[in-house]
Amino acid sequence: MNLFANGAAYVGREFVPIAQASISVLDWGFTRSDAVYDVVHVFHGAFFRLDDHLDRFSRSMQARRLQPPEDRAAIARILHQCVRLSALRDAYVAMVCSRGRPRVGGSRRPDDCENHFIAYAIPWIDVIAQDVQERGAHLWVASTPRIPDECKDPTVKNYQWSDLTSGLLEAHDHGFDTAILCDAAGYITEGPGFNIFIVKDGRVLTPDRGSLHGVTRASVLELCEMLDIPSGVEPIPRDMLDDADEVFAATTAGGVMPVSRVGTRILGNDRPGPISMRLKDLYWKRHAQGWHATPVQYED
Amino acid sequence: MNLFANGAAYVGREFVPIAQASISVLDWGFTRSDAVYDVVHVFHGAFFRLDDHLDRFSRSMQARRLQPPEDRAAIARILHQCVRLSALRDAYVAMVCSRGRPRVGGSRRPDDCENHFIAYAIPWIDVIAQDVQERGAHLWVASTPRIPDECKDPTVKNYQWSDLTSGLLEAHDHGFDTAILCDAAGYITEGPGFNIFIVKDGRVLTPDRGSLHGVTRASVLELCEMLDIPSGVEPIPRDMLDDADEVFAATTAGGVMPVSRVGTRILGNDRPGPISMRLKDLYWKRHAQGWHATPVQYED
Repeated sequence: MNLFANGAAYVGREFVPIAQASISVLDWGFTRSDAVYDVVHVFHGAFFRLDDHLDRFSRSMQARRLQPPEDRAAIARILHQCVRLSALRDAYVAMVCSRGRPRVGGSRRPDDCENHFIAYAIPWIDVIAQDVQERGAHLWVASTPRIPDECKDPTVKNYQWSDLTSGLLEAHDHGFDTAILCDAAGYITEGPGFNIFIVKDGRVLTPDRGSLHGVTRASVLELCEMLDIPSGVEPIPRDMLDDADEVFAATTAGGVMPVSRVGTRILGNDRPGPISMRLKDLYWKRHAQGWHATPVQYED
Repeated sequence: MNLFANGAAYVGREFVPIAQASISVLDWGFTRSDAVYDVVHVFHGAFFRLDDHLDRFSRSMQARRLQPPEDRAAIARILHQCVRLSALRDAYVAMVCSRGRPRVGGSRRPDDCENHFIAYAIPWIDVIAQDVQERGAHLWVASTPRIPDECKDPTVKNYQWSDLTSGLLEAHDHGFDTAILCDAAGYITEGPGFNIFIVKDGRVLTPDRGSLHGVTRASVLELCEMLDIPSGVEPIPRDMLDDADEVFAATTAGGVMPVSRVGTRILGNDRPGPISMRLKDLYWKRHAQGWHATPVQYED
């Protein structure tokens, strides 16, 4: 029996089974949500776009002035080791840098804190369940507005999900699978754990604001180029979402996930749309071909 | 040697020394900052306004649909027990309810999670150090705008401090002690861990927006009544802060804390103002007299 079968974590500079991976209730990463993170997936034994995730993780840390003792090479080694210990072939692999606690008793200064790095590999997660992806997700347009970019930079991947969680609760109250948030000016942004795309008159569009610069989002834009589908990153008013021919979500934790309903509106035949399906199929086909893949070092 | 001397915590339904109090790195209280909390202080062996803190904690939990197994009476007993184990006479006592993790594997629904309660008592914390309180804090007016109330309700005490932390980093960069945030419309709100008050022409005012309904804030308003000082809760534009005769901060973790500088402006004689000092002195005098006090049950 592999003790790490449910997942392997690196925390406090040690590798432990995921059930033992914890942080202090006094850690500012918890008490101030003063932490950044990133998630890369492992599909059939290989990381997908590992360097892109490491790049973004570095940018997030820099933006919040977080610096753990482990450098980029060490972080990459630790991620490999977490997956290797878990022996998972398909995995959700997280990297986190937390502010930690002040080195000096009584200090309330972020700069006085001992930042620390956490990582873990756990079994694959779908942000939207597979069966829901099959029929197309039902998307609720939340009344909670997205936190403005000026108040909290959405390109810095963070755990401060209050607005997203409020949207998710609304969605579930109305019998929907998940939610999309609009900003105060009425432009669509993102949902809890995914970027959003609309298809209109053959063009594939994703919002330029209130959103993470998703690695899967970038992958979708690459796939559009391969398929000669015109695409763009631009302001998308709520009206355009309501008027879309197709809608889909994109995330590391699930890939390209078609939507079949937006609020009371039923898209197409209440099924995933054709362009969404082409992108989804090509996304997984390319995965199988080793696109942007970094094989996990399972052996020495 | 008391194992709990550095602090005592209740976590996972057990009492443990604070150094052992931790939560899973997979807990949504961490990975989505999906948690609410409250802090009550113990001064000279008695809780201050314990019922008010328990009331607010209940409201916060309700607002986020969090419900731990422990009811209010149990929570109160646990808080007493944490302080008792620590044997602290002056303490910072926190209560937290976290979303926890889904009971059902694979669920991404907040409603499927097992909410859990955490509490701890640790030695007294001053949000602004005592020596800084003596000379008056230097307050930086942050360029980061406060997250709008519509996006995240500031009366629900939460750990999502991104905007406050950004303000704090700015303040430290400029050699200031702490920061105050304005909302997008230019009204002042609160700082990292405290409410703000201004004194103008003998009136004591605190913002009606973007702020926690602080228990110390309520106490200050009561003290104003006792001292026949007119007071109000109202919109306060940035101009009024710049033009104030006095400024002070108020928090459970430090009480009434005078400010002597706001940005480049020096208030009064670069010392705490007279009304601020009257309020501060009466605040502690009343404490010593047992005002709103609930003695800690140190013995059976």
